[in-house]
Amino acid sequence: MNNAEVMPASGKTAVSEADKLSVSVLKFGGTSVKNLARIQHVAEVVRDRLKVGAKILVVVSAMGDTTDYLLKLGSQCAKNPDRRELDSLLSTGEQISITLLAMTLKEMGIKSRSFTASQIGILTEKVHSKARIVDINSDNLTRALQENDVLVVAGFQGVTADGDITTLGRGGSDTTACALAAAICADVCDIYTDVDGIYTADPNVIAEARLLKRVSYGEVIEMARLGAQVLHPRAVELARQYKVRLRVRNTFRPDHEGTIIDQGEGENMEIYRSISGVAVDKDQSCVTIMDVPDKPGIAGRIMQALADNNIVIDMIMQAFHSTAGHNNITFTVHSTDLDLTIKTLEGIKGDLDASSVISDCDIAKVSLIGAGLAGQSGIAATIFKAFGSAGINIKMIATSEMKLTCVVSAKDADKASKIMHSSFGEEI
Amino acid sequence: MNNAEVMPASGKTAVSEADKLSVSVLKFGGTSVKNLARIQHVAEVVRDRLKVGAKILVVVSAMGDTTDYLLKLGSQCAKNPDRRELDSLLSTGEQISITLLAMTLKEMGIKSRSFTASQIGILTEKVHSKARIVDINSDNLTRALQENDVLVVAGFQGVTADGDITTLGRGGSDTTACALAAAICADVCDIYTDVDGIYTADPNVIAEARLLKRVSYGEVIEMARLGAQVLHPRAVELARQYKVRLRVRNTFRPDHEGTIIDQGEGENMEIYRSISGVAVDKDQSCVTIMDVPDKPGIAGRIMQALADNNIVIDMIMQAFHSTAGHNNITFTVHSTDLDLTIKTLEGIKGDLDASSVISDCDIAKVSLIGAGLAGQSGIAATIFKAFGSAGINIKMIATSEMKLTCVVSAKDADKASKIMHSSFGEEI
Repeated sequence: MNNAEVMPASGKTAVSEADKLSVSVLKFGGTSVKNLARIQHVAEVVRDRLKVGAKILVVVSAMGDTTDYLLKLGSQCAKNPDRRELDSLLSTGEQISITLLAMTLKEMGIKSRSFTASQIGILTEKVHSKARIVDINSDNLTRALQENDVLVVAGFQGVTADGDITTLGRGGSDTTACALAAAICADVCDIYTDVDGIYTADPNVIAEARLLKRVSYGEVIEMARLGAQVLHPRAVELARQYKVRLRVRNTFRPDHEGTIIDQGEGENMEIYRSISGVAVDKDQSCVTIMDVPDKPGIAGRIMQALADNNIVIDMIMQAFHSTAGHNNITFTVHSTDLDLTIKTLEGIKGDLDASSVISDCDIAKVSLIGAGLAGQSGIAATIFKAFGSAGINIKMIATSEMKLTCVVSAKDADKASKIMHSSFGEEI
Repeated sequence: MNNAEVMPASGKTAVSEADKLSVSVLKFGGTSVKNLARIQHVAEVVRDRLKVGAKILVVVSAMGDTTDYLLKLGSQCAKNPDRRELDSLLSTGEQISITLLAMTLKEMGIKSRSFTASQIGILTEKVHSKARIVDINSDNLTRALQENDVLVVAGFQGVTADGDITTLGRGGSDTTACALAAAICADVCDIYTDVDGIYTADPNVIAEARLLKRVSYGEVIEMARLGAQVLHPRAVELARQYKVRLRVRNTFRPDHEGTIIDQGEGENMEIYRSISGVAVDKDQSCVTIMDVPDKPGIAGRIMQALADNNIVIDMIMQAFHSTAGHNNITFTVHSTDLDLTIKTLEGIKGDLDASSVISDCDIAKVSLIGAGLAGQSGIAATIFKAFGSAGINIKMIATSEMKLTCVVSAKDADKASKIMHSSFGEEI
């Protein structure tokens, strides 16, 4: 499934050189605006950044647990809340945080104004709960930036051509920030979070993890997709597509320079390592559809049924079964999609002549990431040996130009990531 | 100050006879949607009404104390929260209740859809916190009603031509309901509340108070303006202007027929009494600007300064002062406007050569209402005598075609209303 946003090039070219404003985009996530004290802190960070000269466009998420609270309200009203209504309900979370931040900035004497996605014109496709951005009204943005020093824009949400409110799904606020940065040709898009930047591994698990000063889009996409939880891959993909310079920074240490994410070319190329880090994703589940007849088109029908339900699958493995002419097809999905995945497969099981659908949510994906992985031999062998000595069973394996991923039992996840990190300590 | 909404006649005529749908408008206030159990109950009331055949347009307020909670959040962010931001913040309250109600209706299998004011097109003037409705997009309404059996529309909010969110101020949700009923030529606009209808007096204070079966727009406007808290006068004014038949009904006794409000003409005219009820308003304050020179134009300048701040004043009294050539001007305002009123008058005090501004928030307005009041003599005398015997001091008096209002000390309010009600027991 193609998850890239489909913003037309107009977003990039609509601003003429004469009109071009120097703009920084700053994105603050839910923990950064968890309560009013933190909103005050964010306002101070914005005020200090404003002194540097450029106009600022701030993207904020909903406050702390607001989204979870609203989801809970929705699920109490209906077993399967209507997705259009749910998106409209959830969008109030960001509408609350943007208005409170804009008020706080105004109280500081800063010319500031809040905008919902509908007000500023973040147009998405007509898909609820996982909409992709189609276009951004850069005329609106330019005008609003001429009239104000700081725009506060709601992350995570969009609007369809019909005026229905959509949400962008996981990584939504990061995606909003990158899309706005692209539309307005921003100098930089700073993603403020609660850590100093991107590490070679989770510093809470691996004490030796080191902060990366600079890393390429591609490496961050692999890291993020594999659960490093720094930035959502779709946001980074969008940044790569429109050459938006990203920085990951700490809201609570605003003077720290953080990690720069760019194309990984030019004078600083030497700082890139062949292996840039280890990522762990514990939010995945395995699903297997058993005894599928080994006929052409079957896998395609399964994938289509999942795509029709907007389920993104990741690793896929097809294993021959003992029964001749039948396969088991196994893949991984995000655990929040597990119920829908099982329901979807149960629905088509009969048509496919498959015997049953089984699942395992007790898994984790552990990955080694690096631009130079492709050029190195023996890495897989080193890992398999080390995992074997530690008694860790590998359930699935996948490799690409930039990563090597093993699916292991959830209980082995931390141990496996430590072994990976220490096995390649010199490279990392 | 003219508070009437300025909806053009297009709202009334845009729907051709061929396209005309039979529609009932139902409005539920904050207590009717206080929690999820009550939203479920409202959904059941709507479902039962749907069986009768007509399409339904439901207008809801924010759940219970949501608006107060949001106001508190705003006031913690800024001493004087920016009104544009505050309106956008407050509007999330109704957005939450409409989406939850629409989800609940969908779960019951009812074709339903929620709309914010911005989505359905409730256009207001560009005034925050007290905006008046300018137009309603009846094409949007008609289309949405053709596609759905129930529309759930956010009360209390509007949108400017620029896309800014506004709120309508006090009585906002009632006004939304009446304006939508006018725009869609609804058969009836039912205002659901937590009492059976409109009484001759507050039944919590006066045991003899009786429910009115039918009452005219004019009487309800006087009652509401004087604090009977059944319906906001601007909503009733709008209903009168567009001949919308109103009913006040009890959410928790949906089979009770309630009180009909209409023009008070036709075959049932005989049910009208000369006196229809007693109303008490405890949310008013008196403000006096002292020692104003007795020159032409002074009162006009005071009123203009108040109007510029969107302060609505009610009773006005000008009393000659002991100092020759100087007056005291006293008027009543809603208590929530008291601080702004004092600030405004202090600001122009010097220009006017006035000596000081004093206020008294410890007052209440007690009023006798009835279409036949004008034709009756001796009523004022009866009341003054009865108040005098009971030791109640009258601070201000005002009369009109349909009412007689006395300002008394707050502590005397209930006693005064009982005396009024019993003095005219036979007429009421």
